[in-house]
Amino acid sequence: MQLYGLPLSCSLATRIALLEAGAPFEYVEVDGPTKRTLGGADYREIHPLGLVPALRTDDGQIVIENAAVLQYVADLLPAAELAPPAGSLERVRLQQWLGFIGTELHKGLFAPLFAPDVPEAVRAYALAKGTSRLDYVARHLEGREFLLDRFSVADAYLVTVLAWTLVTPIDLKQWPSLAAYARRLHARPSVAAAFHAERKLYTEELARHGKPLPAALRPRAD
Amino acid sequence: MQLYGLPLSCSLATRIALLEAGAPFEYVEVDGPTKRTLGGADYREIHPLGLVPALRTDDGQIVIENAAVLQYVADLLPAAELAPPAGSLERVRLQQWLGFIGTELHKGLFAPLFAPDVPEAVRAYALAKGTSRLDYVARHLEGREFLLDRFSVADAYLVTVLAWTLVTPIDLKQWPSLAAYARRLHARPSVAAAFHAERKLYTEELARHGKPLPAALRPRAD
Ligand SMILES: N[C@@H](CCC(=O)N[C@@H](CS)C(=O)NCC(=O)O)C(=O)O
Ligand SMILES: N[C@@H](CCC(=O)N[C@@H](CS)C(=O)NCC(=O)O)C(=O)O
Repeated sequence: MQLYGLPLSCSLATRIALLEAGAPFEYVEVDGPTKRTLGGADYREIHPLGLVPALRTDDGQIVIENAAVLQYVADLLPAAELAPPAGSLERVRLQQWLGFIGTELHKGLFAPLFAPDVPEAVRAYALAKGTSRLDYVARHLEGREFLLDRFSVADAYLVTVLAWTLVTPIDLKQWPSLAAYARRLHARPSVAAAFHAERKLYTEELARHGKPLPAALRPRAD
Repeated sequence: MQLYGLPLSCSLATRIALLEAGAPFEYVEVDGPTKRTLGGADYREIHPLGLVPALRTDDGQIVIENAAVLQYVADLLPAAELAPPAGSLERVRLQQWLGFIGTELHKGLFAPLFAPDVPEAVRAYALAKGTSRLDYVARHLEGREFLLDRFSVADAYLVTVLAWTLVTPIDLKQWPSLAAYARRLHARPSVAAAFHAERKLYTEELARHGKPLPAALRPRAD
């Protein structure tokens, strides 16, 4: 299995899922600006729009889109119990959260805050509209450990997008239940290992392009 | 079963799915600006963010998010074969399209073109970035009748969002395979009946608010 990803981007969620299941995989790093893999291949031949994640399955199929990739991994590795059984109402709840994170948080709130060529008005609009979405998730997480009754691929996706707040004007401390959730999740071995690996790759990526590391990502004493 | 919707919005996809399956349901129309149902109830008690669709199942559960609602309906009414079997690779392909339509088309391209309070720069950015997403779907549909090998809830969602081009600067004729797909789908009884019903409700909604019908939605001779 090969996971095509950009360090610290949404493909990190699939890395968490694979680590959680203890499944072997090869990470194929895509270079953001050039859309080439570090091995020099043209990533647009895998995904014409150049978006990650993409997963190449052991029988050579390419799967794209976070919601699909994460459910594929969960169903491929059922022993890890990363998703409720296919066809159950709990699976519908998982799909609800994958949909919400993908549409309302990832695309609605965060994507406009990141893209290099976004006009300032776009950022302001996304921020104004998007924080109600964080209120919604924060309310759901009050008194809960995970989005569903146990850890699932939706948590892998949520902890990934919440980490992006570090390089945005959003301060997670405004939502105590979200901040506590993120802290708890980061203490989970699969999540800690995934972020550790990708922070290193991201640092190397910036160095390759001669760009400074954002202050929020610099190693700290605390 | 009750479907909470706004006429001609993304909740229309679920109406198509329910008509396709011949399933009885009650449509509870939500008024866009006030977020009250036409019966006067506060829709935010169903969905705190006021987004449609929401489905109230026969056992009183509320399901939100298009990708989840559509798969729920497909699995509830398996005789209609609106989705490949849960757990199959074809279901992963369905999830891929539901994800793509929800994130890249609905949220990435169309949502910014509609919202009443969107700055012009936001619209221009969405248009510039979003049309590559239409290229991607158009290429997939060349020589195909549906997104998968047969009609599925992903087609119900795609034909719904493509109809929004009517009230945007996007001209579907630029993508012959997409224009032909939309024409074919609109000839399908469930799709025709769903648009017919919601065009009427939309016209009534505008009249209630004393707003004119957009030229593109006025009945034409052709
Ligand atoms: N709809 C896609 C979106 C994926 C996406 O936005 N990926 C980002 C990283 S988080 C990406 O590849 N960005 C590079 C680019 O936009 O060129 C999904 O849910 O998988
Ligand atoms: N993430 C949601 C988005 C739903 C959505 O955007 N619904 C629109 C209609 S297409 C809506 O309710 N708009 C009213 C509003 O934004 O207040 C989903 O996929 O179901």
